[in-house]
Amino acid sequence: MLRNKTCGELRIEDCGQEVTLCGWLQKSRDLGSMTFIDLRDRYGITQLVCNVETNKALYEQAKTLGREYVLRVKGIVRERSNKNKNIATGDIEIEVSEIEVLNPSDLPPFTIEDNTDGGDELRMKYRYLDLRRSVVRKNLELRHRLAQLVRNYLSNENFLEIETPFLIKSTPEGARDFVVPSRMNPNQFYALPQSPQQYKQLLMVSGFDRYFQIVKCFRDEDLRADRQPEFTQIDCEMSFVQQEDVLNMFEGLIKHLFEKEKNLHFGKFQRMTWHDAMKYYGSDKPDLRFDMQFVELDDVAKGKGFKVFDDAELVVGICAKGCAEYTRKQLDALTDFVKRPQVGAKGLVYIKYNEDGTLKSSVDKFYSQQDLMLFAQKFAAQKGDLMLVMSGKAMQVRTQLCALRLEMGSQLNLRDPFNYAITWVTDFPLLEWNEEDNRFYAMHHPFTAPNPEDYPELLDKDPGKVRAWAYDLVINGTEVGGGSVRIHNRDMQMRMFEALGFTQQEALSQFGFLMDAFRYGAPPHAGVAFGFDRLCSIFAGCDSIRDFIAFPKNNSGRDLMSDSPNFIDQKQLDELYLSLVPTEKK
Amino acid sequence: MLRNKTCGELRIEDCGQEVTLCGWLQKSRDLGSMTFIDLRDRYGITQLVCNVETNKALYEQAKTLGREYVLRVKGIVRERSNKNKNIATGDIEIEVSEIEVLNPSDLPPFTIEDNTDGGDELRMKYRYLDLRRSVVRKNLELRHRLAQLVRNYLSNENFLEIETPFLIKSTPEGARDFVVPSRMNPNQFYALPQSPQQYKQLLMVSGFDRYFQIVKCFRDEDLRADRQPEFTQIDCEMSFVQQEDVLNMFEGLIKHLFEKEKNLHFGKFQRMTWHDAMKYYGSDKPDLRFDMQFVELDDVAKGKGFKVFDDAELVVGICAKGCAEYTRKQLDALTDFVKRPQVGAKGLVYIKYNEDGTLKSSVDKFYSQQDLMLFAQKFAAQKGDLMLVMSGKAMQVRTQLCALRLEMGSQLNLRDPFNYAITWVTDFPLLEWNEEDNRFYAMHHPFTAPNPEDYPELLDKDPGKVRAWAYDLVINGTEVGGGSVRIHNRDMQMRMFEALGFTQQEALSQFGFLMDAFRYGAPPHAGVAFGFDRLCSIFAGCDSIRDFIAFPKNNSGRDLMSDSPNFIDQKQLDELYLSLVPTEKK
Repeated sequence: MLRNKTCGELRIEDCGQEVTLCGWLQKSRDLGSMTFIDLRDRYGITQLVCNVETNKALYEQAKTLGREYVLRVKGIVRERSNKNKNIATGDIEIEVSEIEVLNPSDLPPFTIEDNTDGGDELRMKYRYLDLRRSVVRKNLELRHRLAQLVRNYLSNENFLEIETPFLIKSTPEGARDFVVPSRMNPNQFYALPQSPQQYKQLLMVSGFDRYFQIVKCFRDEDLRADRQPEFTQIDCEMSFVQQEDVLNMFEGLIKHLFEKEKNLHFGKFQRMTWHDAMKYYGSDKPDLRFDMQFVELDDVAKGKGFKVFDDAELVVGICAKGCAEYTRKQLDALTDFVKRPQVGAKGLVYIKYNEDGTLKSSVDKFYSQQDLMLFAQKFAAQKGDLMLVMSGKAMQVRTQLCALRLEMGSQLNLRDPFNYAITWVTDFPLLEWNEEDNRFYAMHHPFTAPNPEDYPELLDKDPGKVRAWAYDLVINGTEVGGGSVRIHNRDMQMRMFEALGFTQQEALSQFGFLMDAFRYGAPPHAGVAFGFDRLCSIFAGCDSIRDFIAFPKNNSGRDLMSDSPNFIDQKQLDELYLSLVPTEKK
Repeated sequence: MLRNKTCGELRIEDCGQEVTLCGWLQKSRDLGSMTFIDLRDRYGITQLVCNVETNKALYEQAKTLGREYVLRVKGIVRERSNKNKNIATGDIEIEVSEIEVLNPSDLPPFTIEDNTDGGDELRMKYRYLDLRRSVVRKNLELRHRLAQLVRNYLSNENFLEIETPFLIKSTPEGARDFVVPSRMNPNQFYALPQSPQQYKQLLMVSGFDRYFQIVKCFRDEDLRADRQPEFTQIDCEMSFVQQEDVLNMFEGLIKHLFEKEKNLHFGKFQRMTWHDAMKYYGSDKPDLRFDMQFVELDDVAKGKGFKVFDDAELVVGICAKGCAEYTRKQLDALTDFVKRPQVGAKGLVYIKYNEDGTLKSSVDKFYSQQDLMLFAQKFAAQKGDLMLVMSGKAMQVRTQLCALRLEMGSQLNLRDPFNYAITWVTDFPLLEWNEEDNRFYAMHHPFTAPNPEDYPELLDKDPGKVRAWAYDLVINGTEVGGGSVRIHNRDMQMRMFEALGFTQQEALSQFGFLMDAFRYGAPPHAGVAFGFDRLCSIFAGCDSIRDFIAFPKNNSGRDLMSDSPNFIDQKQLDELYLSLVPTEKK
């Protein structure tokens, strides 16, 4: 080894030792008679001292060293006179006897500091320098720890980690595949997996009974902010289980991670049906760090001549505790907020429950004090509270009110990222109607089992009402994972494809091998997949997943560092029997 | 859970317990008054008994159940009268009270037995059934255990597992890339990584200092037997180290795996230079389970009028202990063996050292008994030994003799797959001349550092002689892993690209981001990658890697189960701005 100690480990009790350290020059200060250098590696920072009196040549050499030079340094550990309580090595410094420059460095394009001066684009282009910043490095260290915790937990529970293929068959159902042309099978393509769904089900058919994998998945979607074309899942499947068993097993996993990583201990996770999540929070991923449940107000709001409410399918609101003092300006801002195209509401009605007991609303023309008191009672509002009411088509207004609820939660500082509110959301609908395509789509995926209470009767009568044995894990308003009990019966699976508008031939050509497998003794099975990038970001209390990925892509799917994707040689295209269609021709 | 016990865990002390098991019907025997069923799951086999006297309906039901039916069974654990010592549950059986058919099964296309009647192709098509066979299942269980051992060992050594991207930049150097067309960047392509080489080097530049990953890699090569287009590497890199440190670290890893998995303990691994490996074994991956070193014979073979030897660049042979009794037929077979096109030799000379002290050779015309005795002395041959001698161009004849040596090793049963002979091969040449392209290629890859004793002088004078700081780990004649000290200096890297015939512009357009990174303080670093599929097969004493991969592809890169690759929709092609070139047109 070129070193015998790291820059993070020396302490007061090491004083007097001769050590050799390697690292990067974080910064240096020349005080005229001494040069102080902060030497940085992955483990910490250690202060070096070069004294003009004891070693003039070394002192002169030290003055020539620039930021991010890679150094190998020999010296004696000494107690610092001026201790630094902020770093673990702050009690000591190294009295340097020898400095070897392992590699010089150009001046980096941005500062390697927690608060860097580099913009997003610049840091993406020089990602290898951005990764030197301790804030980014710590994210990847967290990710490493979580990955090992997951594997060891699941291995102890008899799960086998089994690698599924990356070059698989393309199926038009679901999101768009990335495809890979095959040279040996000209004009044919592999697809990169959107998830190992069918393979893990086949492993259950094979009798592997408990499978997991931390695995890259791929989706060629138009990237919204914080979506990546390649992302990582903790992918799991179990046989001979029911929904309850899966929820318990993976609740155990998530609790284990919180205990080991954050020393946080949770009781049994909350459970909420999809129906209740929509009704009380307007979202299938409710943020339960704060209450502020929806209250439905049709009976007190309608019939008073206010046409907006009278004509609405649903009148619904939330009560913001202690916000009756909101100014006109603040209230206008809230109205503007719900009217933004991202929320899309027509307007917002407020009712203040003033400290003096009076009620003041934006619709006083239609509602008397007594009428408004009925609202207040519905909300169980108290003096000082602010009621915010919206109306419209039921599902639409719920989604809009959800945005307002989250905004109020933020304004009231009720969304601390380190206060973890966890819930399972269960009983998702099996199918979701798509207006555009005029057909049902599977809400999770076509392999999800219907709740036997609703199947087969309701599937014929009212398909949209059929509940699935499907579940999501939601932390702080973010879907962290989800899964379902799978269909393991061939006839039921065919019936499901039919409900999704597949002809039998289409179903067999796309999913024939899974359908075949169901002929040969498929066990009951169920599974779950967690978004690992997202899980890491939540553990770190961050919103963006990008900084939990070593080399992420930007919103156009480009890697700015390697300038990829890029053009390839004509020879490569020829070998693949492909030709490019000029983009202007389309 | 649908079960409370598995089919592998019940023992004599569990007798009297009521249990519920789930599994597959392995086989059933109707003895007229009783039906015995072997119920199988991942954990083992348990015998079920249905007795016509105690439960006629159940007995009748049991008769209707076919092979591979999925059953859920309730019953009482009883001691068996007729114990089966071959299985762990052989002391007990289940007196069944209830059988639920969880899923019936068609008759499987081959038997689910260790010695199946299914051919390769059929088992590939129904891979999910092949995976039910315990011989295949155990391979994947071994793979799981090795993966966890690797991760825990390296994590304890402060290595961080960091995921590198799968959608990267295509570079024409090296093997052929699989490419992935980008829809959002029309006419441009990603490549799938042949290895994370450049990314792991960037992680070293980032200061991550110890990195590993168990990761899929991709190579679009014409598949020889036992090559897969996607394969798995244990990929590792370290900073602030020299070659010796890397060898020690990963020797530690391999020893750990042998200790934990097989309770085998090794001393320090042998080391051999590439030069010696070629000289004494004719291969850079010598099989050291047996000795039979090459002996060079120019001084005793030449000058006796035998033109074949006289004209040869090298005369070289091996001594097969105790084989002087080989018959004419056996010797002819050896000659045929070396003349096969795969070996390509012109012929083979033998010298028998008979038990009576006489020497008998196929070239007695040219060599006297005294001459032949000089051969015997060179070989340190004893009475009863057989000397086999070949000649030709030095490197060619060595390779040919290597094939013969391995064949003799096999004939003499010296190649027990569970007798592990491990060596590091070091000091590989940096460059390899390619006659076809009339240029040098990097023997490992262009990022490998030259030995400073040979650089830069020898690179100018005699590039083929420059030794690299490169090393392979060889077990039983198979290269299990390899790596090198990397170049971390920008000028040296440019010099290397130049030696490989790159213009500066080509080098920068393909590897610019790594070259850029070297400007900003790249530390000295080195690494290694192990072929994980291969490592698993060696631990299991198997030759083929295919059965250590859950869903392998055949030699045309096809997955027979999912019938992939396959054609995709015109719509998908249009979105990618691609059109197919008909294969007949080329």
